[in-house]
Amino acid sequence: MNMNVKIAPAAPTATDPLDALFDTMFRPMDAQGVYARTGAYESVVEALVALITSKREADTEVFRFPPVMSRAHLERHGYLKSFPNLLGCVSCLEGSEQEILAQAGLHEKGGDWTSGLETADLVLTPAACYPVYPIAAARGPVPAAGYRFDVACDCFRREPSPHLDRLQSFRMREYVTIGTPEQVAEFRERWIVRATALADELGLPYTVEQASDPFFGRLGQIKAFSQLEAALKFELLIPLRGEAAGTACMSFNYHREHFGTTWDLRHADGEPAHTGCVAFGMDRLAVAMFATHGASVADWPQGVRTALSL
Amino acid sequence: MNMNVKIAPAAPTATDPLDALFDTMFRPMDAQGVYARTGAYESVVEALVALITSKREADTEVFRFPPVMSRAHLERHGYLKSFPNLLGCVSCLEGSEQEILAQAGLHEKGGDWTSGLETADLVLTPAACYPVYPIAAARGPVPAAGYRFDVACDCFRREPSPHLDRLQSFRMREYVTIGTPEQVAEFRERWIVRATALADELGLPYTVEQASDPFFGRLGQIKAFSQLEAALKFELLIPLRGEAAGTACMSFNYHREHFGTTWDLRHADGEPAHTGCVAFGMDRLAVAMFATHGASVADWPQGVRTALSL
Repeated sequence: MNMNVKIAPAAPTATDPLDALFDTMFRPMDAQGVYARTGAYESVVEALVALITSKREADTEVFRFPPVMSRAHLERHGYLKSFPNLLGCVSCLEGSEQEILAQAGLHEKGGDWTSGLETADLVLTPAACYPVYPIAAARGPVPAAGYRFDVACDCFRREPSPHLDRLQSFRMREYVTIGTPEQVAEFRERWIVRATALADELGLPYTVEQASDPFFGRLGQIKAFSQLEAALKFELLIPLRGEAAGTACMSFNYHREHFGTTWDLRHADGEPAHTGCVAFGMDRLAVAMFATHGASVADWPQGVRTALSL
Repeated sequence: MNMNVKIAPAAPTATDPLDALFDTMFRPMDAQGVYARTGAYESVVEALVALITSKREADTEVFRFPPVMSRAHLERHGYLKSFPNLLGCVSCLEGSEQEILAQAGLHEKGGDWTSGLETADLVLTPAACYPVYPIAAARGPVPAAGYRFDVACDCFRREPSPHLDRLQSFRMREYVTIGTPEQVAEFRERWIVRATALADELGLPYTVEQASDPFFGRLGQIKAFSQLEAALKFELLIPLRGEAAGTACMSFNYHREHFGTTWDLRHADGEPAHTGCVAFGMDRLAVAMFATHGASVADWPQGVRTALSL
């Protein structure tokens, strides 16, 4: 069980075996963890998307979210208390034509044009399921059968790193459920079975372990410990660097009544709904495929290629 | 020919016919022009993506970009001189654990926690082709046959609007060429033919008109006028509101040597390369499909559904 609540990025090293895959998967864009994705890499991502879609349960409603969301909503989610260090806000030049031109013009003169930026009402979405809870809450009481959603989003977390399995901008796919504690527990159990079978199909080695979110600060370590104690989070870890510890590529989360209370998302009897989700780190899974099976998709095991229609 | 260089968003009105399609396509996310996308809408976007892919020319290299890019790169592109009002920057809390906690904690106390945000080295990507020029430039001289790229990106432009054909966060797909003026001119002519044929396949009414970019400010109007005079930009406009002026859903652009000079992207003889692109506004095209053919995809003309495999 990994008790580290914040994995410090290791120093750049010439011996990270993932680096040998860089040119196959990415092109540099002048920022750590922000990369152009090659056609070969995108074909694998698209194939993984289709495979995960093929496992979708009946009566699941689909939403796709843009990479930005309401700042007020994220504040209400409590993100500032848990991960203030990871948040990316949108800021813009506001004001009259003259003011915006004067401010932007500082750049030409070698000045700091960014001093005039004002925080907008938007942030970069840090997790794919956040926008779904207010949408569900707007419908009134949760139906007796609960809800199941299929959501996806380009997510952002401010943690620049030289490691190719830690991007600042990455794609997350989730199946989310909203219902009673029993419904959520059953959903999570079903998905641990289904997701490990999916990893088998993909020829990926893995372990499933209890885990905690990277809550910020010393108080965050207490939150992380109580999350571990209550077994609220499991991760599917894939070893991307031989014997080293695995990288979390999927997670299975039980949020208890956190989002139910936050969004006044309740059952007909007034009790706050419980929620849970299974999250697929699409970019980490794609990196894991190349790390496990090699740079040339044509040389991947036939069974894996068949599963992905590649 | 539309000489307006900045289309002011009209006041919200209960009579915008697009509003009747909102629930089919979107769910609110507490910000104008930032919407959750329904499964029905995404199916149409995915089908349009596949149809545009099927028209891709041979020897075209694929890149997909994340929704953020290097701020230094965007500054070098000259974006601050042309569209400073549309730019979204990423800003984050930086500093020690204590500093970040103190700043984020202001929120709980009713204070303004955003006062401590610092501008990061990233911006929200405003156009899908920007990241491709430095990637091409890093390879040395442009080959005699030129380059062709297939790129796509979630783009951001700060123009909140109640109109569903003007999103702040939207998806852009582009075919980009880099080469001689003749190569770029031929590319653009081919794509005007191919793209209008595509609009015919989709059963969309349209006109193709000369256009200008929404350059900012009074000096921007001069830039826009010279862009019109030189016929650097054409747009495919689709009427989304009956008789009203059409909405630009595709554009055909000739940048002359702007990006070649900016990125030192040159031919073997040292001359700066010329560039051009055809851009597909994926969200505008999807909105156009619903506006033209109705809310129920099952009731769309059979030929259109066949073209989209829907």
